[in-house]
Amino acid sequence: MAQLSVEQFLNEQKQAVETALSRYIERLEGPAKLKKAMAYSLEAGGKRIRPLLLLSTVRALGKDPAVGLPVACAIEMIHTYSLIHDDLPSMDNDDLRRGKPTNHKVFGEAMAILAGDGLLTYAFQLITEIDDERIPPSVRLRLIERLAKAAGPEGMVAGQAADMEGEGKTLTLSELEYIHRHKTGKMLQYSVHAGALIGGADARQTRELDEFAAHLGLAFQIRDDILDIEGAEEKIGKPVGSDQSNNKATYPALLSLAGAKEKLAFHIEAAQRHLRNADVDGAALAYICELVAARDH
Amino acid sequence: MAQLSVEQFLNEQKQAVETALSRYIERLEGPAKLKKAMAYSLEAGGKRIRPLLLLSTVRALGKDPAVGLPVACAIEMIHTYSLIHDDLPSMDNDDLRRGKPTNHKVFGEAMAILAGDGLLTYAFQLITEIDDERIPPSVRLRLIERLAKAAGPEGMVAGQAADMEGEGKTLTLSELEYIHRHKTGKMLQYSVHAGALIGGADARQTRELDEFAAHLGLAFQIRDDILDIEGAEEKIGKPVGSDQSNNKATYPALLSLAGAKEKLAFHIEAAQRHLRNADVDGAALAYICELVAARDH
Repeated sequence: MAQLSVEQFLNEQKQAVETALSRYIERLEGPAKLKKAMAYSLEAGGKRIRPLLLLSTVRALGKDPAVGLPVACAIEMIHTYSLIHDDLPSMDNDDLRRGKPTNHKVFGEAMAILAGDGLLTYAFQLITEIDDERIPPSVRLRLIERLAKAAGPEGMVAGQAADMEGEGKTLTLSELEYIHRHKTGKMLQYSVHAGALIGGADARQTRELDEFAAHLGLAFQIRDDILDIEGAEEKIGKPVGSDQSNNKATYPALLSLAGAKEKLAFHIEAAQRHLRNADVDGAALAYICELVAARDH
Repeated sequence: MAQLSVEQFLNEQKQAVETALSRYIERLEGPAKLKKAMAYSLEAGGKRIRPLLLLSTVRALGKDPAVGLPVACAIEMIHTYSLIHDDLPSMDNDDLRRGKPTNHKVFGEAMAILAGDGLLTYAFQLITEIDDERIPPSVRLRLIERLAKAAGPEGMVAGQAADMEGEGKTLTLSELEYIHRHKTGKMLQYSVHAGALIGGADARQTRELDEFAAHLGLAFQIRDDILDIEGAEEKIGKPVGSDQSNNKATYPALLSLAGAKEKLAFHIEAAQRHLRNADVDGAALAYICELVAARDH
């Protein structure tokens, strides 16, 4: 794909994800306030990087990305639930997310907890409902298994728990990497891995794509830490320097700003190399990789 | 089964569930405090009525209940997560559960939220991991789909959200029944339905067992409300009359105590009738039904 058509592809897919997410909430028969709270955070915007990784991987393997749409939405629901719960007063106690009041600020803590619980549970339902002809039962089961592992007590939840436990302590680089590999890495990796499963990647492609995603995940987090120091407040939608003032371990704090930038470049290069080795139509994935390296919010 | 062997069967199954639950947590590679928080509430006791309903239904259909054990544990994990989240300060704000300090009292709010999130996610993983030979992929997918529906934003989470919204308001009987059918009913019904799926029930048996479970679920809740008035504090492990003092809608409040007892008897009889109509070896299910009618905690 040419650069222009890559951008167009990603814009179209992002739109498809956002339309599908809204429909999935609309069709629910449940208390109105619960639906509103779930929709509020799902529709609060964001880069939709996880669904786009999945859909771009499916596309890179020559399959119709529409087949992966429900799984892409499931991933975004789980990502969104994690943001809602992370923002709670007893967790990170954030009032703003993407420049808007956080879920509990609008709907109250109880409803925010329930909206998160609802999104997490609903995500699994979406994958079960896909037609057997589009994704066979055994592959859907594998998709659910890997999603639960990526999101659960050996994945994202483990990362968040380690993050909570590490607050106020001086972390080593390996402890910091444990947190990031779990808190954000596992779900980013899952996004690509699920795309490989849906797209029918062979063993070698799957291995290279998994490596691509692992490096991309670390790059993503390092960039996040750098942005916290360099980014403009209005662009990232939260107070700049909040990590420093919260005394949180970050890559720049452990490696210096220059060292963090070097590490970012290393992981981006490694990601691009593994992507090339995967021998897929990876233009959209390469473009996402560039966006992560250069993103300013 | 004779009465004695029924009691023995249920005790053995309860033991099997508790052993399996502990093993499932032990095997996790994750932060120690997260595992402790998850295990604490899982191991806090309770009647294990949901897993026992599932395993007794599998047994009633002539199959080995061991086949259903991972699904029984998944149900108990989801039930336990819901208790942890319901007890949080922003929800019911309970300090005691089964006579022991609630999860957030011991591990803090953040870890309690994460323990709940972890249990919910892990529950789905357990079902995916069952061998194809024991439960085929298409049935496992159905089990996951129904579990997500029973627990999610059209099931248990909807009931809890409606309950939160109804606090301090005067509810009608139909609003109260909506809350109970969702908050506790859906998961009790799922327990029997999952047993029917695993045990290979035919359409008529499934229908009768579903009806059995629906009536049992309502009976369970009515008995709970009656206990809140009549029960001894040390037996139920929370202050007696807490519903009244919290101004919560209950069956006795809406129907009088005598009216509630009449309704309890009606649902127990209907449950037993549907169980007989299912033409299964239902001794253990009938016994659980009697326990619900007579339970004093």
